[in-house]
Amino acid sequence: MGDEQGKQKIAWAQAHMPLQSMLGERFSSRKPLAGQRIGVALHLEAKTAVLILTLHAGGAEILAVGSNPWSTQDEVVGALADVEGIVVHARRGESEDDRQANLERLRAFRPTIVVEDGGDVAVALAEHGRGQSAGLVGICEETTTGVERLLQLEEAGNLWVPAIAVNSARMKHLMDNRYGTGQSSWEALMGATNLLIAGKVVLIVGFGWCGRGLALRAAGLGARVLVAEIDPVKAVEAAFEGYRVVELGEGMAMADFVITATGRPGVVDGAALEQAKDGAVLANAGHFGYEIDLPALQARAGRVDEVRPNVHVYVLPDGRRLYIAGRGELVNLSAGDGHPVEIMDISFSLQALAVEYLVGRGAELPPRVHAYPQQLDTTVAQMVLHTLRETSTG
Amino acid sequence: MGDEQGKQKIAWAQAHMPLQSMLGERFSSRKPLAGQRIGVALHLEAKTAVLILTLHAGGAEILAVGSNPWSTQDEVVGALADVEGIVVHARRGESEDDRQANLERLRAFRPTIVVEDGGDVAVALAEHGRGQSAGLVGICEETTTGVERLLQLEEAGNLWVPAIAVNSARMKHLMDNRYGTGQSSWEALMGATNLLIAGKVVLIVGFGWCGRGLALRAAGLGARVLVAEIDPVKAVEAAFEGYRVVELGEGMAMADFVITATGRPGVVDGAALEQAKDGAVLANAGHFGYEIDLPALQARAGRVDEVRPNVHVYVLPDGRRLYIAGRGELVNLSAGDGHPVEIMDISFSLQALAVEYLVGRGAELPPRVHAYPQQLDTTVAQMVLHTLRETSTG
Amino acid sequence: MGDEQGKQKIAWAQAHMPLQSMLGERFSSRKPLAGQRIGVALHLEAKTAVLILTLHAGGAEILAVGSNPWSTQDEVVGALADVEGIVVHARRGESEDDRQANLERLRAFRPTIVVEDGGDVAVALAEHGRGQSAGLVGICEETTTGVERLLQLEEAGNLWVPAIAVNSARMKHLMDNRYGTGQSSWEALMGATNLLIAGKVVLIVGFGWCGRGLALRAAGLGARVLVAEIDPVKAVEAAFEGYRVVELGEGMAMADFVITATGRPGVVDGAALEQAKDGAVLANAGHFGYEIDLPALQARAGRVDEVRPNVHVYVLPDGRRLYIAGRGELVNLSAGDGHPVEIMDISFSLQALAVEYLVGRGAELPPRVHAYPQQLDTTVAQMVLHTLRETSTG
Amino acid sequence: MGDEQGKQKIAWAQAHMPLQSMLGERFSSRKPLAGQRIGVALHLEAKTAVLILTLHAGGAEILAVGSNPWSTQDEVVGALADVEGIVVHARRGESEDDRQANLERLRAFRPTIVVEDGGDVAVALAEHGRGQSAGLVGICEETTTGVERLLQLEEAGNLWVPAIAVNSARMKHLMDNRYGTGQSSWEALMGATNLLIAGKVVLIVGFGWCGRGLALRAAGLGARVLVAEIDPVKAVEAAFEGYRVVELGEGMAMADFVITATGRPGVVDGAALEQAKDGAVLANAGHFGYEIDLPALQARAGRVDEVRPNVHVYVLPDGRRLYIAGRGELVNLSAGDGHPVEIMDISFSLQALAVEYLVGRGAELPPRVHAYPQQLDTTVAQMVLHTLRETSTG
Repeated sequence: MGDEQGKQKIAWAQAHMPLQSMLGERFSSRKPLAGQRIGVALHLEAKTAVLILTLHAGGAEILAVGSNPWSTQDEVVGALADVEGIVVHARRGESEDDRQANLERLRAFRPTIVVEDGGDVAVALAEHGRGQSAGLVGICEETTTGVERLLQLEEAGNLWVPAIAVNSARMKHLMDNRYGTGQSSWEALMGATNLLIAGKVVLIVGFGWCGRGLALRAAGLGARVLVAEIDPVKAVEAAFEGYRVVELGEGMAMADFVITATGRPGVVDGAALEQAKDGAVLANAGHFGYEIDLPALQARAGRVDEVRPNVHVYVLPDGRRLYIAGRGELVNLSAGDGHPVEIMDISFSLQALAVEYLVGRGAELPPRVHAYPQQLDTTVAQMVLHTLRETSTG
Repeated sequence: MGDEQGKQKIAWAQAHMPLQSMLGERFSSRKPLAGQRIGVALHLEAKTAVLILTLHAGGAEILAVGSNPWSTQDEVVGALADVEGIVVHARRGESEDDRQANLERLRAFRPTIVVEDGGDVAVALAEHGRGQSAGLVGICEETTTGVERLLQLEEAGNLWVPAIAVNSARMKHLMDNRYGTGQSSWEALMGATNLLIAGKVVLIVGFGWCGRGLALRAAGLGARVLVAEIDPVKAVEAAFEGYRVVELGEGMAMADFVITATGRPGVVDGAALEQAKDGAVLANAGHFGYEIDLPALQARAGRVDEVRPNVHVYVLPDGRRLYIAGRGELVNLSAGDGHPVEIMDISFSLQALAVEYLVGRGAELPPRVHAYPQQLDTTVAQMVLHTLRETSTG
Repeated sequence: MGDEQGKQKIAWAQAHMPLQSMLGERFSSRKPLAGQRIGVALHLEAKTAVLILTLHAGGAEILAVGSNPWSTQDEVVGALADVEGIVVHARRGESEDDRQANLERLRAFRPTIVVEDGGDVAVALAEHGRGQSAGLVGICEETTTGVERLLQLEEAGNLWVPAIAVNSARMKHLMDNRYGTGQSSWEALMGATNLLIAGKVVLIVGFGWCGRGLALRAAGLGARVLVAEIDPVKAVEAAFEGYRVVELGEGMAMADFVITATGRPGVVDGAALEQAKDGAVLANAGHFGYEIDLPALQARAGRVDEVRPNVHVYVLPDGRRLYIAGRGELVNLSAGDGHPVEIMDISFSLQALAVEYLVGRGAELPPRVHAYPQQLDTTVAQMVLHTLRETSTG
Repeated sequence: MGDEQGKQKIAWAQAHMPLQSMLGERFSSRKPLAGQRIGVALHLEAKTAVLILTLHAGGAEILAVGSNPWSTQDEVVGALADVEGIVVHARRGESEDDRQANLERLRAFRPTIVVEDGGDVAVALAEHGRGQSAGLVGICEETTTGVERLLQLEEAGNLWVPAIAVNSARMKHLMDNRYGTGQSSWEALMGATNLLIAGKVVLIVGFGWCGRGLALRAAGLGARVLVAEIDPVKAVEAAFEGYRVVELGEGMAMADFVITATGRPGVVDGAALEQAKDGAVLANAGHFGYEIDLPALQARAGRVDEVRPNVHVYVLPDGRRLYIAGRGELVNLSAGDGHPVEIMDISFSLQALAVEYLVGRGAELPPRVHAYPQQLDTTVAQMVLHTLRETSTG
């Protein structure tokens, strides 16, 4: 490996990913992925590097690209660069053109397995037609958003291989979306702003698993939590958890912090932004950077300045200043180090086992979106409990 | 001002310190500190710069040094450098010799008022004898630790001017020590380690106001909290808050994170370190960097490496790895940006009002440690409530 | 109505069940249940009386029995006694023989619709053969336990009519099981024992929706929470919520309070009881009174005494005293007034709408266990939000 | 002892008051109170009976009256009746005339020590002049309210013996006022109303130790908490705890539950009651039953009815129904069993040690209000920790 800081970050992650270590040992000795070409399109930071190394230990050749230009950490890319059998094409802040070129390189790599979040590779493969994907055995998709896109491909008859919805694993959405997003988004927001959370009014937009984690940690930091949610059952749950349920505009007018986690484009639209109060900090914790309608905001703003690293102020004609943390991209990655290490140990162990499962069983599976195999889900949970039992007694 | 990043950080802080803005306006127009020479020895980061600018706006000439080599932010020092009437002598990681030289410069400045945390300037002045402090009107001291040293000077007959124990203000220790330390220490620890807090066992050593804040936020992040505390009444409080009360050694053996907040040197001593479990992360949230006995640890460790920025591993002969975050110094400053802005707005408004009070009344006050004037404490509380009322309605 | 105290309790419940009021008005004017004979086997306390009155307002004739001898409130039975068209056969503490005789009366009533929790009526009907149930249109079953028994009937070919699994409604298990059981079980335990919860160690056996509610409220009252759970994924969730995950025996040895919510007979068996610590208070929050193996306990105990109303002490040969609250039956009903009124307003509105649905659509539905209709679930959620919106603004 | 149910309640309390047991053993063998006549004016329920028995075991003769007509439990009075050397004059709901007659009996008893809460005995003694109190050695007063009245006597020169402000003990106000009042008031409110707390808006009037406990448990039960508090520093604390700080009238208009804990007569006055929302439940958790201005409410109400045991509805001319729980008296006693047993074990152990201290040292102490002796405070804390350590390990 090349980059020292990147190597250090990866080593730290490895030391705190006991599940990956267990899998890595088994993969090293048995080489279950021998002969596979795995195309990876994930957030390229240290924990992802550990997954890539685990897959590589299993005997696979890897080509990796970033799933989001603002989540790539260049030092980690650098550290992976001189491992034989691993190729990475990604750079923090890369242009859309560069990103497309990298996706194209991944496609040209002719992967047998794709591991991604967000579904960009799957869509790109579909667009090029089935003939271009010869050899592809299956896809592992991590996010809710990506799964929705795969289901659209399936409906349109453009999914030719089985795809595992890793997000459907209970160990994924109950842990990663909730406890991972909850902690890491607040960690990023506190780091980016240095502002006090206690006593603040926080609006969570969307009360899915991500939203629940965000609300839980906001309350744990002393904030008063408002929730805007369109599913009435979830809204009642939010009320009984002690949060105040509001309409979006009503909440915008009261909130010091606004965090989106809905998976829907432009949910905080121009009308909602009109309601926002002076000094509000807005961030996104959903997969794609489009939940806050930044073009609409930019169109209204007289000027935009970076006021702290990863915090931009938009000054509106009426003088209100709205702060966007992490460029509206997934804030825990764009303004932080992403999910806590142990959370990604779980999620990436689900991924590694799903890859192994596809290699072994992919040929038998019909070409549609499959729920995560329950047995593997349970296996990962037992590995976590085993680890906790060994170390955690207080 | 010189340094761009420092200027940006200071501007962000100013925008979120409404109390300082109110005081700054009044100070600018009335110049209550005209003719004063104020010696400042504080943690030199952005919020402190705002206080320095407020005092300067009041008409004072300022000379500032850092109160801890690892809390100084060079870009902030740079930004203050070309303000006429403000001189700063400090550098991040400066040697003990440099630090002493800077304290000497402060003494030579012949301050009329000293504003500090930790009591180093007061002790230095006392050591040089009364004759060297002609013109000194009074001292404002912010920390519990510093107040204890001032009381020792008073008992020894070496306190010749009135000193205000700013920490005795309810708006100080109830807010800064509790909510400030609680949030910012965890923010720093999460940033430094990228580890998951949920499900972890956290040992808080000392259940004073800092310890309470640390415990509150640990629980809010999903940790199980152990408390070691020598005052039996405080220990019962901890138990009824739902924390598990333990002996120090017992807690060390179970904890994934250990945070000290006692004000006592070497409270986590060699014997306690012997109990620590493999992989534990240790940090200090008390004023001085001596609560964890690092020399004892270093003596035992075969090697020490930096494994992430601000995280060092000590590998013990039996193979256990102990991680020290923030060098054992005040972790929120040595591995982060210090207290949240709004908290320092409160604490520094208490300081600014205490300076003004000493300028007006110092000559009448007997030369001893004085509790913070209750009227000023209430004034600051009312300013905060006014601000909250204006902005916070959800 | 006859009994004054019972009337008062029912009136209080009615005043706090706005959903039942809305349904009651519609039912009164449109009589959608005209001509129906509804057999009710529920916990006969004030909120259930409101449901019975709502169904009665819809035009139905009602015969009601108790679903558990220790949850019947005699004053409520008395209050219902002289409403024309409502017959009740139940008495608190009735013998098993009496209970069977009452079930027989219900069967002889030839109900067109059965509304029950626990499945006893469905099983009794099945035992008497299909010919004896002519005219039966469908069954509404409220509990997880009852649904499991219905599924067994279905598998054995002994379910001849559609049954609605009311518990499958999100508005049921997410609200009633979690927030209802959580609050009311602790309310009953505090009332029965007058003991402090803060600082106590509480073992929750089973981390389903009931267990989550019990754990949430235990923590909210200042307890340290242990969780024993056999599903590893749920166990990891418990750990990340900040609870300590334990094996059952291990937890028994530490707990001051033990509460079961598993639905499994004898989960706290003789071996577990051997581990219990002196002075522990044990209670059950699952539907049936068999989760704590009381016969095993009684066999070991030298003597059994009632030491407070609804609290019995079992003195073991080694001197340990174990306290059983609420006779091991559903503690919120056997030692309290059951779920909070507003929770039962939700659950019983689901029931009333399910009855109306069966009357309208039952003939078309295949004879099996049906998930609760999603549209009705959403309707009830919207009614709750509407109520909250009208009244709750702080 | 006479009454069986009372005996049972007392036995249960004794079994859960380990500190009283330790003191009782020592008192029994050493008889430190031999020859004393102790006048007790406390809430006469089971835990108080244990204190009376402990003092009696120390060799004292006891005469006890109730400190509040609605906190007396007749079965407990009955159970104490035939203990030689203990006389009780009290009855639940006794008239003001009866109460005065009982206070007169206590005065005529010529106590050497008075143990009371609220200060009524001290005031009565003062009114009768010094000559009537010959032999009086000292007074132990438990409440904040009572201490204020003693300080008024002291200022007026009408306090002729030393009085110990038991409430000044940290083990008293930090535990009893906070965790005792917090749990037991909610326990009483839930029992009296059977209403859901989750999702409700709760207004706490007064953010002293009682108010903090009430707020903590309200939040723990899922409520959204509003705080009205006139001390601006405490108000800022409430805000940073995550509660919403409001003006009283503003809070009244939003709250589903209103609980007072200020010690001030008529704090919820006619104007505040005008703001209350339809269906609100009001209760008092301060010592005296005058914090809610019930005469003002009664004057407005067309009618008053009891709607559940210990809940009265006041129907206002505009149709709003306001519910008063526990008659506006201390709700945990007027509608429940008072503080949790373990809390009173602590408070009464402070009392018993204070009595012993006055017997031994009273003659030397100047006749004024004395802070609780720190050494005894620490002793009680150590006894609690010892108990916790022996039993609580999870």
